[in-house]
Amino acid sequence: MIEIRLIPQKEFKRIRAANIDKYTKLKILANMCRANAIATVKRAGSGHLGSSFSSLDIVTALYFAEMNIAEVGISHPDRDIYFSSKGHDVPGHYAVLYAMGLVSEEKFLNLRRHGGTHGHPDVSIAGIEANSGSLGMGISKAKGMAWAKQAKGAGGRVMVMTGDGELQEGQIWESLQTAAHQKVNNLIVIVDFNKFQSDKALKHIIDLGDLESKFRVFGWHVERCDGHDFAALEDVFARLKGITDKPKVLIADTVKGKGISFMESPTEWPDEKFLYKWHAGAPDDDSFEAGYGELTESINNRLQSVGLDALTTEIIETREKNRIKLKDTAEKVVNAYGEALVELGTQRKDMVVLDADLSADCGLRLFENAFPQRFIESGIAEQDMVSAAGGLALQGLLPVVNSFGVFLASRANEQIYNNATEKTKIIYVCHYAGLIPAGPGKSHQSVRDISLFGALPNVVVIEPGNAVETKEALRWCVEEASQSCMMRLAISPSPRTIPLPDDYHFTYAQGTVIIDGQDAALFAYGPVMLNEAMVAAATLQAHNCSLKVINLPWLNRIDEDWFKKSIADCDTVFVLDNHSRYGGLGDMVLNTAQKIDTARRKRFIKFGLDEYPACGTPPEVLAYHKLDGDSIAASILKTIQGS
Amino acid sequence: MIEIRLIPQKEFKRIRAANIDKYTKLKILANMCRANAIATVKRAGSGHLGSSFSSLDIVTALYFAEMNIAEVGISHPDRDIYFSSKGHDVPGHYAVLYAMGLVSEEKFLNLRRHGGTHGHPDVSIAGIEANSGSLGMGISKAKGMAWAKQAKGAGGRVMVMTGDGELQEGQIWESLQTAAHQKVNNLIVIVDFNKFQSDKALKHIIDLGDLESKFRVFGWHVERCDGHDFAALEDVFARLKGITDKPKVLIADTVKGKGISFMESPTEWPDEKFLYKWHAGAPDDDSFEAGYGELTESINNRLQSVGLDALTTEIIETREKNRIKLKDTAEKVVNAYGEALVELGTQRKDMVVLDADLSADCGLRLFENAFPQRFIESGIAEQDMVSAAGGLALQGLLPVVNSFGVFLASRANEQIYNNATEKTKIIYVCHYAGLIPAGPGKSHQSVRDISLFGALPNVVVIEPGNAVETKEALRWCVEEASQSCMMRLAISPSPRTIPLPDDYHFTYAQGTVIIDGQDAALFAYGPVMLNEAMVAAATLQAHNCSLKVINLPWLNRIDEDWFKKSIADCDTVFVLDNHSRYGGLGDMVLNTAQKIDTARRKRFIKFGLDEYPACGTPPEVLAYHKLDGDSIAASILKTIQGS
Repeated sequence: MIEIRLIPQKEFKRIRAANIDKYTKLKILANMCRANAIATVKRAGSGHLGSSFSSLDIVTALYFAEMNIAEVGISHPDRDIYFSSKGHDVPGHYAVLYAMGLVSEEKFLNLRRHGGTHGHPDVSIAGIEANSGSLGMGISKAKGMAWAKQAKGAGGRVMVMTGDGELQEGQIWESLQTAAHQKVNNLIVIVDFNKFQSDKALKHIIDLGDLESKFRVFGWHVERCDGHDFAALEDVFARLKGITDKPKVLIADTVKGKGISFMESPTEWPDEKFLYKWHAGAPDDDSFEAGYGELTESINNRLQSVGLDALTTEIIETREKNRIKLKDTAEKVVNAYGEALVELGTQRKDMVVLDADLSADCGLRLFENAFPQRFIESGIAEQDMVSAAGGLALQGLLPVVNSFGVFLASRANEQIYNNATEKTKIIYVCHYAGLIPAGPGKSHQSVRDISLFGALPNVVVIEPGNAVETKEALRWCVEEASQSCMMRLAISPSPRTIPLPDDYHFTYAQGTVIIDGQDAALFAYGPVMLNEAMVAAATLQAHNCSLKVINLPWLNRIDEDWFKKSIADCDTVFVLDNHSRYGGLGDMVLNTAQKIDTARRKRFIKFGLDEYPACGTPPEVLAYHKLDGDSIAASILKTIQGS
Repeated sequence: MIEIRLIPQKEFKRIRAANIDKYTKLKILANMCRANAIATVKRAGSGHLGSSFSSLDIVTALYFAEMNIAEVGISHPDRDIYFSSKGHDVPGHYAVLYAMGLVSEEKFLNLRRHGGTHGHPDVSIAGIEANSGSLGMGISKAKGMAWAKQAKGAGGRVMVMTGDGELQEGQIWESLQTAAHQKVNNLIVIVDFNKFQSDKALKHIIDLGDLESKFRVFGWHVERCDGHDFAALEDVFARLKGITDKPKVLIADTVKGKGISFMESPTEWPDEKFLYKWHAGAPDDDSFEAGYGELTESINNRLQSVGLDALTTEIIETREKNRIKLKDTAEKVVNAYGEALVELGTQRKDMVVLDADLSADCGLRLFENAFPQRFIESGIAEQDMVSAAGGLALQGLLPVVNSFGVFLASRANEQIYNNATEKTKIIYVCHYAGLIPAGPGKSHQSVRDISLFGALPNVVVIEPGNAVETKEALRWCVEEASQSCMMRLAISPSPRTIPLPDDYHFTYAQGTVIIDGQDAALFAYGPVMLNEAMVAAATLQAHNCSLKVINLPWLNRIDEDWFKKSIADCDTVFVLDNHSRYGGLGDMVLNTAQKIDTARRKRFIKFGLDEYPACGTPPEVLAYHKLDGDSIAASILKTIQGS
C-alpha cells in the first residue's frame, strides 16, 4: 500500500507565525507546497509537476512575502493580482492558495475531479484571476487588467508568470509591443526560465537566443535573478517598485522539477536526444514515495535547524501499490497513427511532418527519429507552423501538421483558411479531440474543432474509431484524398477496441454498422463515444429495445444512398457527437436528411455538448454531460416510448 | 468625360530593350507600372494605391533586374520566388506582372472584377506565388517554400515583402524565430517601411521602436536602404548573396504614395491627428487626372532626357465625370453603429472601445475622438486585443472589440474562446461581414464568422438589417445582454434602407415580417441579403407566388413560439445566409424546427455559400453564387412548383 498525505492548513499557519529567519521560512513553506502539490497530482493521476516546482519558490515569495492579498483580501480593487499564463503549473499554485486559506481542503484534494479544482486555472476557483492553459495569452490579459487598474485609479500591481517555451507564441510579442506603447507600466511579467519544454531543451526546440535583449528592444525594463533565491527575489521586487516608466519583466532562472533531486532538470544544456521526464503526468508509486520522502525530510531538517517541531501530516488516501492501469494495456489510436506515419513516410518521400512541441503526445516520435530530415519542429507557434506548411504544399510537398485540436483548429484558424484557399493539399491532425480525457479542463478538451473546419468547403474531416481505422484513414488522406483533410484523434487509451465487421472496408463517406438493430439508429464516431454507444445498446437490449449503432468516421461527407439505406428501418435517428452539439456530425446528418424525401420525415435527435466541457474523470464528466451510455440509453428509451 | 488609359505591353518591351542607363530605365518602368496601377484602381473603383506605390520601385527592381524569372520562367523549380505578405499592394504587383507579359491585358484591366484579377493576391493568377491579404502570414509561408527548396535541392531565393504595420502581428515574430533556428537562410524579407498604417502614422498606432535591433536580436542579418534608390537596392541584393549563415531582411525606407506628389506621405513623423488619405480607395476624378498626368509627364521627361520617344497609351474606358455614387447617399449601418457607440458611451463610463488599426472603416472615429481615454488602439494584433479585452472585462469594464470579421473571428478565435470560458461580458463586432463588397476578395469577405462563434454556448450572435436595428442591437448588447455578444455588421452602403413595420420592436430571439406572404417563407438578415430577399419577393409576386420575407437578426437564438407562428402558414421554408451554408442561420432554423412537431415536417431549404467567396462587383458575385434576388426567386419557384 502507498499512503498519500496532506500537510494541513494549520501547519502552514504555524510556520507562518513562527519567529524565524524570513528566507528559511519561505524555503520551508515552498517545500510544504511542493509536498502538497505532488500529493494532489498523485491522487489525480495526472498534472504538471516539473513547472509547478520550477515556479513554486517565486509563487511562494509572491503570496507569503510580496503581495498585499493577505492584508486586503482577494476581492479588493487595490489588490495585487497574480496569475499564471502557462497555467499547467497550477497544482503548485493551488497548494499556495490552499496554504493561504483561500481554497478549501476538499476542493484542493480533488484536483482534476468534477467539483474539485480544474487541471488548468479557472476563475471559478477562489484566488484564480484568469483562465489559462493555452499558451501565450497571459501578458495580453494582464495588460488589460493593469490598464483597467490605471483607468479606475486602483492600486496594486498585476503580475503574470509565463513559461519560457511559451515565449515562442507570437501573441507574446504582440503584447510586449502594445504594453510598452500603451505605457501599461503597472505590469510585471515573470518568466519561469527553466529551459525545458514538453520534454526537450528549449535550445533544441526553438532557441530563444538573447532573451534579455529581446525584452529590452521591445521597450521593457529587464531584471534577471535566480528564481530559487528568496533574497534575490525580494531585492528584484523592491527594485521594480522604483521603475515606473516601462512595463517590467523578471527573467527568473529556475530548475524544472526543483526540490526533488531526481526530477530536477540539468543545469547545462543537454544534447538533442535528452528527454526530460517530469513535465506532465503523475509519478509512479516508487517515485512518489521517494520524492515525497525527500521533500518532507528537507522540510523537517530545516524545521529542526530553527528549533521548530517536525511536520504533522494527514493521510488522505491509501491505495494498493503498483496497480495495473488501463493506459498500460489498452489500444491507443494515436499509437496506430504514429506507426502509420512511418509506414507511409517510408514510401512517400514528399511527406513532411510538422510538430508544435507535442511530439510524444501526438505519436510523432517514431517518425521524428526515422526521418529527422522530414520532421519540422516548430515550437509552440502554431500559426507559423500552419503557414509554413502552406509554403511546403505550394512547393509540392505533403505536410502533415500536428497539434492538439484546441490549439490547431482555433489558434491557427485563419492560417488554415488561407492555406485552404490556395487549394493545395495539407493534412491537419487535431489530437486530443473531444471531451476525454477531461482532467486538463476546457483549455485542452477540443469540442469545437469540427465547427472550426466546417465552413472550409474543400477540407474533409474524419475521426477514426479504432487502430485499424486510424491507419486506413491516414492512408486515405495521404494516398487518395485530392484536397486537404483534417483528422481528429482521441489521445486517451481506448475504453475498448471498437469492433469492425469481417468485411470491413474504409469507404469514402460511408460508415459501418457495428451493432445491428431496428428500433432506432445511433450514429457515433471515435473510440470514446462508440464505446458509450455500445454500452447504450447493451442497456437498451435489456429493455427489449434494439439499437442500431453505426460508426461514421466521415464527419462532413455523407454518401446519400448509403445513408438512406442505413436508416431505412428506423423512424428515429440519434447522433452522438464527441463535440459541441453545434456544427458536428449531428448537423451534417440533419442536413443530409433534408435532401432525401424518405429521410427528412424521420425524427432526428442530437447528443452533444451544450456548454463548456467539464473537468473531472472520464466517468464523472460523461455522466455530468449525460453522454455516458446509461444516460444515452435512458434518453433514447424515453424518446422512443414517448413517440 | 474622363479617360482611363493603359500603357500597353509593347511599350514596356520597347523601354526594356532600350540601351539606356539601367537606373533611369528602372525609374521609367516603375512609373509606367504606377500609371497602369492607378488606371486599374480607378476603373475598379477601389484598391490600395499608397502601398502599391511605396513598394513599386522595389518590385520593379526585383522583376526587371534581380530575379531569374525572365530567364527560367515562372514554373521552374529553380526560379526566384517573390510574393507580398501584405497583399494589398497587389495593383502594383499586377502592373509589373502585366508588363512582364505574365498577366494578360484582359485580366489586368479587370481588377476586382469576376474573372479578372482579385483584390488581394490569388495563386490562380499567373505569377502570384501565394494567397495573402490577411496580414502576418507571409514570412512563415515563404519560410516553408524556402525550406522545401532546400529539401529538394532547388535553386533560387524566396523573397517576401511585408508592410511595416504588419510587423505588429505576432505571427511575424514566430516566423522570425523559427526561420533563424531552422537555418532557412535562402529567405529574404523586405520590409516596405513607409511608416503609415491605414491612415495614421505607425508611430502613433503601435510604435515598432528600433526595428533593426529587433530583427538582429531574433537572429537575422539586417540591411537597410532607401527603397526608392535603385543603385542602393542593387547593392543590397548583391551583398545579400554573400550572406549564407542567416535569414536576411532588408528594411527599405519608402514613402507611401511615392510617385504622385499629393499622395506622398510626410517624411517626418506627423502629429497624432494627421490622417493619410491614400491607403485605400480609388481617387476621385480630379485626383486621378492630376495624378495620372504627373506620372506620364515624369515618364516622358525621362524618356526625352535619354532620347526616346514619348509614351503611347491606349484609352480603355471613358466615363462621365463626377458621377454620383451610391456610397455618397445610401444608408450605412456602420455609421449608425458609430453614432450608437458614442450615445451609449456617454452614459456608460465602463465602456471601452478597442480597435486594430481599422478605426475609420469600423465607424469608431467618433468614439475615438469623443472618449480618447476609453479608446484602445491595439495595432494590427488582434489576438493581443482580444485577450486584453478579457483582462478589462475581468476588472469589471465593458470592452467593445472591433475588427473585420475574418480577422477577429478567425485570427483571435482561441482568445475569444478563452475569454468566453471566464463568463465575463465582452461585445465583439465583426465588421465587413458577409459576401459584399466582393472586390477585396476572400481574405476580407467574412463568410465563416457565425460558424467560428457557433460552438461558444454563451455568446449571442446578431446581424442587424438597417440603421435603426443596428442602434437597437448595440443598445441590447450593452444594456440588456447578460453575457457576451457578437454583432456582425455589413460595411458597404446598404442597397436600400430595409423597411421595418410601424410597431417595430427589437425583441430577443424574434424577427420581423417585412413582406407578408403565404406560399413560402424566407428568413434573411442584414441589409445585403434582405434586399435580395425583397427583390426575390417582388419577382415571385409577378409569378403569382406570395413570399413571406422575415428579417431575423438573431442568428443563434430563436424563440420557438414565435418561430412556430411565423411559419405556420407555409409548407416550405427558405433561409438565406450571408455566410457559408454551414453553420449559419440556416442550420439554426433546421435545429429549431426539429424541436417542434408541427415544424419539423415542413421542407427546409438553405441558400448560402458552398465554396470560397468569389471576387468581383456585388452584382457579379451575387449572381455567380446564385444569391441574387432573381436566382433566389427562380430557385424558390422551382421548389414550390415541383413539390
